[in-house]
Amino acid sequence: MRKVTVSGIGMTPFGKHEHTSLKTLLMDACVDALKEANFPKIDAVYIGNFMGGSLGNQEILGAIVANDLGLGNIPTTKVEGACASGGIAFRQAYLNIQNGVCDHVLIAGVEKMKHASTEDVTRAINAAMDNDSNEKNAGLTFPGFFGTLANRYFYETGASKKHLAMVALKNREYALNNHKAQFRKPASLEEIMAARMITEPLGLFDCSPTTDGAAAIVLSKGEHGVIVRASAQASGTTQMQETEDLLSIPAVRASANTAYEQAGLGPSDIDVVELHDCFTMTEILAIEELGFFEKGTGWEAVEKGLTKHGGKIPVNTSGGLLSKGHPIGATGISQIYQVVSQLRGTSCNQVDGARIGLAQNLGGTGAYSTVHIFERVNA
Amino acid sequence: MRKVTVSGIGMTPFGKHEHTSLKTLLMDACVDALKEANFPKIDAVYIGNFMGGSLGNQEILGAIVANDLGLGNIPTTKVEGACASGGIAFRQAYLNIQNGVCDHVLIAGVEKMKHASTEDVTRAINAAMDNDSNEKNAGLTFPGFFGTLANRYFYETGASKKHLAMVALKNREYALNNHKAQFRKPASLEEIMAARMITEPLGLFDCSPTTDGAAAIVLSKGEHGVIVRASAQASGTTQMQETEDLLSIPAVRASANTAYEQAGLGPSDIDVVELHDCFTMTEILAIEELGFFEKGTGWEAVEKGLTKHGGKIPVNTSGGLLSKGHPIGATGISQIYQVVSQLRGTSCNQVDGARIGLAQNLGGTGAYSTVHIFERVNA
Repeated sequence: MRKVTVSGIGMTPFGKHEHTSLKTLLMDACVDALKEANFPKIDAVYIGNFMGGSLGNQEILGAIVANDLGLGNIPTTKVEGACASGGIAFRQAYLNIQNGVCDHVLIAGVEKMKHASTEDVTRAINAAMDNDSNEKNAGLTFPGFFGTLANRYFYETGASKKHLAMVALKNREYALNNHKAQFRKPASLEEIMAARMITEPLGLFDCSPTTDGAAAIVLSKGEHGVIVRASAQASGTTQMQETEDLLSIPAVRASANTAYEQAGLGPSDIDVVELHDCFTMTEILAIEELGFFEKGTGWEAVEKGLTKHGGKIPVNTSGGLLSKGHPIGATGISQIYQVVSQLRGTSCNQVDGARIGLAQNLGGTGAYSTVHIFERVNA
Repeated sequence: MRKVTVSGIGMTPFGKHEHTSLKTLLMDACVDALKEANFPKIDAVYIGNFMGGSLGNQEILGAIVANDLGLGNIPTTKVEGACASGGIAFRQAYLNIQNGVCDHVLIAGVEKMKHASTEDVTRAINAAMDNDSNEKNAGLTFPGFFGTLANRYFYETGASKKHLAMVALKNREYALNNHKAQFRKPASLEEIMAARMITEPLGLFDCSPTTDGAAAIVLSKGEHGVIVRASAQASGTTQMQETEDLLSIPAVRASANTAYEQAGLGPSDIDVVELHDCFTMTEILAIEELGFFEKGTGWEAVEKGLTKHGGKIPVNTSGGLLSKGHPIGATGISQIYQVVSQLRGTSCNQVDGARIGLAQNLGGTGAYSTVHIFERVNA
């Protein structure tokens, strides 16, 4: 099987783009990535997007990209897997190149959410749950789901709201140095802990925001530069009542284990990580499920500063979903943008000598997870 | 590269399913296909769906299928390419098996549209155009687009509204024998021609209906049975103003040419066809673009009865989108269901001795087209 390398990355600033259309955001990121890749002949396009139809009445993003960028009559596809849409799109492209179906593939993720009312966004996001279930009728939302997990985590471990706040603070501090991040205003631990409650115990800073933005990547056959060492995806339960253990996310663990096996690597080989901190609680669970810390001890790692520079493994040096922003379909691609930047040595919050990086993208309440591992290989 | 065979097919009746949820339709079709395939270990799931989010507030259909059918934590993906979502999903699955990524893949398409108002459905369908364009502001709809093509076709050729009606009549007559078709009430040429006008010159019978329904297929590695001889996909323009010639659909021609080349076959080798008759006019253009008849002569072929039993090539023996129904995400899969049934010799409107069949699925105003060619190979 052929090796696959990242030949270009692009990303718009994340935040509110009031006067820029979904299509323009998408094109801007794609053109940046294509330019960096020196405009190779693209063989296919994969787009990650979640709510273009429900919030923007715009689908066919694959064909629009091929058409408007003059890429020819190549196959194009939008893929959806809730908040993991970007990671899944990336994996489809990777499989195409690995197996010789394509030599160069353009992948992009995009979302435009800030124009919609809170009510509309909440409803659209809830399409990422199984709504043909009593949980929908009971009024469960995503903050409700992850808030329940946090309460249970507090009950089972020594963790408290302070540890959630420490995750939010770390990611905010990283975002201060990322000029593409949505939130670049400093915040204190006190401010974070005192912020407006969303769903007990999750306050405003514990929840990722709504965001407009896009990110794009060109993948190519090749053995040098930042190469893809592993690409894994797993599914999980789509309803809370079906989870065997509220404090595990089996799709994250399964996708990580598959990726480590593919790469012949383990957690201790990873130098830098972007993971899916849709809520502060999710970051603590993810560092456990990805194998960086033992189950039930993630909060201690946070307390000891082990998930930032100088610790065991710097996590979400981009600012994460919490402070970089979370334009749903773009998130998985923007995580890879950050990991690739780290391995190139050109990132904000650069981790010295980073050679191997991991990106983990979650969808729904654990319905999807992708894990990609990258390595810098000099020519 | 490995050969790929169809090991199971399933399909719900098409029509109005007032008391059946999107999820239940999807599960019913999947279980039928899995049962026929004798429940192999499924390695991945691809779902074709277009408006689950906008009309039903339900995404994550891939994960729901894996979860509710107990398929394990396998990778699952929804793909979108407007009305070609089903054909594109099928092609992703095919590539996975052909390249050894998977041994067995479940593909399903589903849509639920009948519960929504005409206004809501029209808006949701228009997400399959580029709405960041002046054409949207000008009020262009799909009947408007294909009606314009029909007027131009009449102008350039000797065709008239009667030839459109003959397409509608043929497909209705085929649907009478398909117990899964939406419309099984006979209609006369006079009734069709006199029906309520939708967009000049397209009347009610010239337009495919809104439909609820689902279809599913299990693809497996294998060299016998009904095998996949070719799988091709192409993109085209996303705006009417960009088309070079109103009477051609380049994506259809390109995907057909690629498929013929892959299979080492030509139009004269095909025994039976299902093609994308979203409007009667589209069927006439498609029989030309697929190479069965010369450009500008499709209407004559229809007049001479060359597109039905006893003619050159029986087209849409299922009743087509026009009379079988058009549940958008399910359509591409249901076309393959029909072609496979024909090649197995178990179809309604059976074509005697059919050995090679073709399915063509269109998305948008020519933004996407997939062509798949199948052959019956006895063990």
